[in-house]
Amino acid sequence: MIIDKSKIKTIDIKKPLQLESGQVLDSFTIAYETFGTLNQKKDNAILVFHALSGDQFATGINPITEKEGWWVTAIGPNKAIDTNKYFVICANVLGGCMGTTGPTDINPKTNEFYGNIFPLVTIRDMVNAQVLLLDHLQIEKTLCVLGGSMGGMQVLQFCSSYSNRTYSAIPIACTASHSAQNIAFDELARQAIMADPEWSNGNYLKLKKSPRNGLSIARMAGHISYLSEEGLQEKFGRRLQQKGDFKFSFDADFQVESYLKYQGNAFVDRFDANSYLYLTRAMDYFDLYRENNGVLANAFKDTKIKYCIISFSTDWLYPTAESKKILIALNSIGADVSFVEIMTNNGHDSFLLDEPEFLRSVKGFLDSAYESFKASH
Amino acid sequence: MIIDKSKIKTIDIKKPLQLESGQVLDSFTIAYETFGTLNQKKDNAILVFHALSGDQFATGINPITEKEGWWVTAIGPNKAIDTNKYFVICANVLGGCMGTTGPTDINPKTNEFYGNIFPLVTIRDMVNAQVLLLDHLQIEKTLCVLGGSMGGMQVLQFCSSYSNRTYSAIPIACTASHSAQNIAFDELARQAIMADPEWSNGNYLKLKKSPRNGLSIARMAGHISYLSEEGLQEKFGRRLQQKGDFKFSFDADFQVESYLKYQGNAFVDRFDANSYLYLTRAMDYFDLYRENNGVLANAFKDTKIKYCIISFSTDWLYPTAESKKILIALNSIGADVSFVEIMTNNGHDSFLLDEPEFLRSVKGFLDSAYESFKASH
Repeated sequence: MIIDKSKIKTIDIKKPLQLESGQVLDSFTIAYETFGTLNQKKDNAILVFHALSGDQFATGINPITEKEGWWVTAIGPNKAIDTNKYFVICANVLGGCMGTTGPTDINPKTNEFYGNIFPLVTIRDMVNAQVLLLDHLQIEKTLCVLGGSMGGMQVLQFCSSYSNRTYSAIPIACTASHSAQNIAFDELARQAIMADPEWSNGNYLKLKKSPRNGLSIARMAGHISYLSEEGLQEKFGRRLQQKGDFKFSFDADFQVESYLKYQGNAFVDRFDANSYLYLTRAMDYFDLYRENNGVLANAFKDTKIKYCIISFSTDWLYPTAESKKILIALNSIGADVSFVEIMTNNGHDSFLLDEPEFLRSVKGFLDSAYESFKASH
Repeated sequence: MIIDKSKIKTIDIKKPLQLESGQVLDSFTIAYETFGTLNQKKDNAILVFHALSGDQFATGINPITEKEGWWVTAIGPNKAIDTNKYFVICANVLGGCMGTTGPTDINPKTNEFYGNIFPLVTIRDMVNAQVLLLDHLQIEKTLCVLGGSMGGMQVLQFCSSYSNRTYSAIPIACTASHSAQNIAFDELARQAIMADPEWSNGNYLKLKKSPRNGLSIARMAGHISYLSEEGLQEKFGRRLQQKGDFKFSFDADFQVESYLKYQGNAFVDRFDANSYLYLTRAMDYFDLYRENNGVLANAFKDTKIKYCIISFSTDWLYPTAESKKILIALNSIGADVSFVEIMTNNGHDSFLLDEPEFLRSVKGFLDSAYESFKASH
């Protein structure tokens, strides 16, 4: 999947980006969107980090897919993240496939697609890149950084690496390091992609092939982990696609089978298989414990940021227990931190849905942070 | 994978088997093993049903794989299922690939491999086939039928369909119907197999191909569901394959990745991809509620069987809540039922492991059932 770059907004960063792996990107591009207006004092900026399958088109209509943005429930005029009031920035992550430099781009050194010659990137690399975007926009300090899932990991990394660049932070449905089960799911997805002969050892773009089946299966595995058992049972249960008896075949007989197949197939039209490998790998490597000699609190030493940690009761991908570890670490150093566990059956996906208590929590925290941020300068 | 049939014990059933799908197998073969000795009164027989990836070689050395049987922890002299005392029967399920008729067999009508022309089979069909084995062995009533996972489903179906053919029953780590999440995992596995070009629309045996990658990924998905989050964390955590830093590649960097890849690769040497499709489908279709107009208790009406239901605290594939539904149904009709939840971190796989409390529960129940069975005639 190669996007039409005339439809996206980008900046070119003409200086080298040192990556955690030791490799260097001599220059790179960040694709981003903004929503709302930056005020004169530049104190109403909010940086939103997207999740694995997200992109910069957080709200409004995504010009590439022509569908609504992935966080249209949360961002917009009078919504929880009110674009009448705030200036919202969202950038495609490094290694992504919606315009920021990643494996679908041309390697300037070879004039070929990067494919899986693209250097491995980490959550920290993604954050470093986006700080350069803030520099470009001349925003010294955001009101808030927030995001769910992989976006939440970026929030945590941002707060750890750039504690003076934001006033507040909302890490949502995330973790400070991937568990063995998280890694296992990601590895399953990667193996499914790499087992697809069309993947062609990562060179499918050059060869005009497409590992659709592999990416589709990877996405199915993702969806299983995003929904809770209860949510799946409520939504689908054992309902059949067609009324009556079983078809006694391997076609989709149950609605949940059709749902997964649909989700898998729809995904391959808008996402790149190599990007999926890179981003899942970045999440697996993310480990704020390891970076801080096993002491998570050290990641946030001397932090002055106001935090609101949000988890969802039936999220089994990043369970509430993971959020509580972050809460405990922040409390142990006397940080200004609040914590909300939203009771819902919708599992990990809850942060993308119209969950009123969740959205009220985000709005309440943001609006109050804005008042105190304004009063502080 | 085609097995050497000279190494297995079989009986040929020369009468038609009516399948739930409406199709008929004109004749079929059951591959089975026995362990211990049937006594003169024929009241010491135990029928063990195997799980998805199991076979008739429940204990001792499997002559095909040359490895120990899958339930060597539970079955043997002086073990929980004591072969000094009991006569244990275990048959490969219908649709399996260890000698009982299934997709790897030759269709007598075409002289070609069945492949995915083999008729769909259900848990009830599997049980019907094994009752014919009991007839062949001239065992009117077993002391006990037991099994875990798909084996437990067969136990429940046996008790429902043949309530006068066993004195007692131990359904372990199972459910009376697959949840939407269970179906989702199975569908993921099936899609992975069918997406492998080597699957060749099910005709890989004829074409001398092998959908190894697809089956391996299916098995990886299975293993994720068999282990608990806690168990995976204890066993692997974030430990790396090689000491030191990340390799910054897509090779297996974490131990849990190597484990899954190993499990996937090892499985394809001993299992057939089409069988995997058939058996997962049989589990998805299994639904004792549906068979009984939504009232599970009706499945066991007038039952005189002594039940011991066993679940494992961290089994998220078939959680304890599913066992409790069976318990409630049996209690509601005044059945003789006991229930044990084993506290363990080992998830669904616990029934295959050396879990002392679990094995003591099985032994205690069996030995006591044997005493009362003997006293009753």
